Amino acid sequence: MLILTLNCRRFSAQYQLYDWNRQALLATGKVERIVVGDSFVTHRVPGHDPRHLDGECADHKDALQLILNTLTNDKDGVISDVAQITAVGHRVVHGGERFTKSVLIDENVVDAIREVATLAPLHNNPNLAGIRASQALLPGISQVAIFDTAFHQTMPEMAYIYPLPYEWYKNHGIRRYGFHGQSHSHAARRGAELIGKPLEECNMITVHTGNGVSLCALRNGASVDTSMGLTPLEGVMMGTRCGDIDAGIIPFMVNEAGVSATELDLFLNQKSGLAGIVGRRVSRRTVVDEAVVGDARCQLALDMETYRLRKYLGAYIAVTGKPDAIVFTYGEDWEDWPVRGMALSGMEHFDIKVDLKKDEEALKGDREMLISAEDSGVKVFAIPSGEDMVLNEDVAAIMGWQ
Amino acid sequence: MLILTLNCRRFSAQYQLYDWNRQALLATGKVERIVVGDSFVTHRVPGHDPRHLDGECADHKDALQLILNTLTNDKDGVISDVAQITAVGHRVVHGGERFTKSVLIDENVVDAIREVATLAPLHNNPNLAGIRASQALLPGISQVAIFDTAFHQTMPEMAYIYPLPYEWYKNHGIRRYGFHGQSHSHAARRGAELIGKPLEECNMITVHTGNGVSLCALRNGASVDTSMGLTPLEGVMMGTRCGDIDAGIIPFMVNEAGVSATELDLFLNQKSGLAGIVGRRVSRRTVVDEAVVGDARCQLALDMETYRLRKYLGAYIAVTGKPDAIVFTYGEDWEDWPVRGMALSGMEHFDIKVDLKKDEEALKGDREMLISAEDSGVKVFAIPSGEDMVLNEDVAAIMGWQ
Repeated sequence: MLILTLNCRRFSAQYQLYDWNRQALLATGKVERIVVGDSFVTHRVPGHDPRHLDGECADHKDALQLILNTLTNDKDGVISDVAQITAVGHRVVHGGERFTKSVLIDENVVDAIREVATLAPLHNNPNLAGIRASQALLPGISQVAIFDTAFHQTMPEMAYIYPLPYEWYKNHGIRRYGFHGQSHSHAARRGAELIGKPLEECNMITVHTGNGVSLCALRNGASVDTSMGLTPLEGVMMGTRCGDIDAGIIPFMVNEAGVSATELDLFLNQKSGLAGIVGRRVSRRTVVDEAVVGDARCQLALDMETYRLRKYLGAYIAVTGKPDAIVFTYGEDWEDWPVRGMALSGMEHFDIKVDLKKDEEALKGDREMLISAEDSGVKVFAIPSGEDMVLNEDVAAIMGWQ
Repeated sequence: MLILTLNCRRFSAQYQLYDWNRQALLATGKVERIVVGDSFVTHRVPGHDPRHLDGECADHKDALQLILNTLTNDKDGVISDVAQITAVGHRVVHGGERFTKSVLIDENVVDAIREVATLAPLHNNPNLAGIRASQALLPGISQVAIFDTAFHQTMPEMAYIYPLPYEWYKNHGIRRYGFHGQSHSHAARRGAELIGKPLEECNMITVHTGNGVSLCALRNGASVDTSMGLTPLEGVMMGTRCGDIDAGIIPFMVNEAGVSATELDLFLNQKSGLAGIVGRRVSRRTVVDEAVVGDARCQLALDMETYRLRKYLGAYIAVTGKPDAIVFTYGEDWEDWPVRGMALSGMEHFDIKVDLKKDEEALKGDREMLISAEDSGVKVFAIPSGEDMVLNEDVAAIMGWQ
């Protein structure tokens, strides 16, 4: 039973082929420059060098065709026929209030995803394109939608309603939805496992790290708050997104500095966060390296990211009570990220004691690590990001394989 | 030595006449409907009924003339001649980065206040009009400017810089300034006094409550963070202001719902917060009363105000370490505000234990009250707002009367 998972964005499509019976990853890859031209796929098979293959993709259907060709061709293929694929899992960013869990896709589901697309057009429309392509090229195969927002639908009203005109919620769907649901869900399950307590009895804080960063507060294993909101812009400071700012800055920049609405979107989402402070798009590694040799702006960026993360931890501890655990996920390229250790230092009044040596070790490997000190009342873990695995698990659950 | 303090807004001017030698309040009052027509003054002398006097005020100079006439007329007056006034204290909302404390006003100061007015035109321009009126009508008398922002100029860079393009700070002054400086300063001084420790050794959180609400985190007696930002819109949920929201909501409402920039300003500042959730401008008393009889929207508004305040307390405890004290100020019309007690309940993991009975008692009177339980590690106080007194103290200090 093979699962193909797809994560379609505007100009790219990530894929993974997973053998559920053998619990083995067969291949992963990414098609880039869809629509824009000169598109190509990077295909990775465990144990082999990555392969680059050119192939013009005018749309997401072409991209999926390129993926299927790559998966089955003589040289790079891992299967002989696309008919071996049993189910396709589609990552869909926005499920609005309609979707509280993953679902088998039918026309009603497609309509609902399209309706919700007003909330996240840049994300849901490519997701839909991927679903349509998959229905066309893999007819008769089960298609499953897995929503980034679904995990947070357990939030109480006081956490998801904004202190704005209430009609904005009723008429336009303005509320906190939250994102990174697969990652928080995985982190919470692993956290419960690691402390040896049923998930339903755990109060926890999970932190998803990547270019986007978000936190989730969990009570009794369920999301009760999360730092991202209507959009992925809210919350802590990120790679290129600002996170929390004074909303009054926006009319000020429009009126005083003549910034247009379109420019604003670009500034807040792509030229803010670490990139905004440092003055260019940078990896976190570069920020750390340059801070060490005395670059003041990089040091400021590090201090700000740390400070804002620490404040969120404090805020969420006010929500969860003393948590059983704090679980940080990490993905690729997250070596030498001192922010986690810095944010956790000096938190003894919360009964949190980080072991900075373990924290550093956790950044070298690809395994689950306890990074709090022996006598820390709150256990802190760093674990590899498990988003992709959640996609597979959800597909398998819906297919009745568990 | 008599001090006249003035707080000029766009269409109103509040005043207070204080006898510094006798430490006695002589009169307070407010001119309303300046510029708009049908203006009048409400004049209060301790021990007497308030008096309403009509008097057309086309501008703030007319308003000050009305105040001076009222203070000196035979029937309502408390002094015989304006020459008895020794100094005038002007509340100025925005001091930008230029003013870190109160100053004697000269032409350089006026120019600087005017420069900073781009950051808060609706506030600083009326403040300037009051200064100009006072210079014209009370020539030769010392004029002092007291800035709402000055107290927070001790914040470190990581707290006041936003994760936005850094040029916005350099070119447009976009940063956190904070407001309610007089109130936080007074609360901090009283808090230190009440716990019997030098202010410079105190870590504290102060909470200013009113239609606008803001928090301040203090380390060693100095402001290190505050919830209001570039504008008074940021922070906790307020009477009519939203506080923290996802900045991504603004472009969404502009693009999807066709809301204009001008409307947005009105929505966020005047039709949000409690008013936004309840659907109309309401007193906190009304919200509480209607929540008690089962109004769901009022209950939601209360829960949200509580929840958002509690998260800020947690965030600031991450900044201050375990605080020596939390000090809430309260002004008129703050009876029966259960939010303070609700936000402080269930915070035992922060070593905060509120005594709900004392908390309730504190709402009845006009005195400083300890509202934490005997065995609470963090002392919590509720004290009457002392903003006006700080204006007098600052004027006296600059005049060398202390």
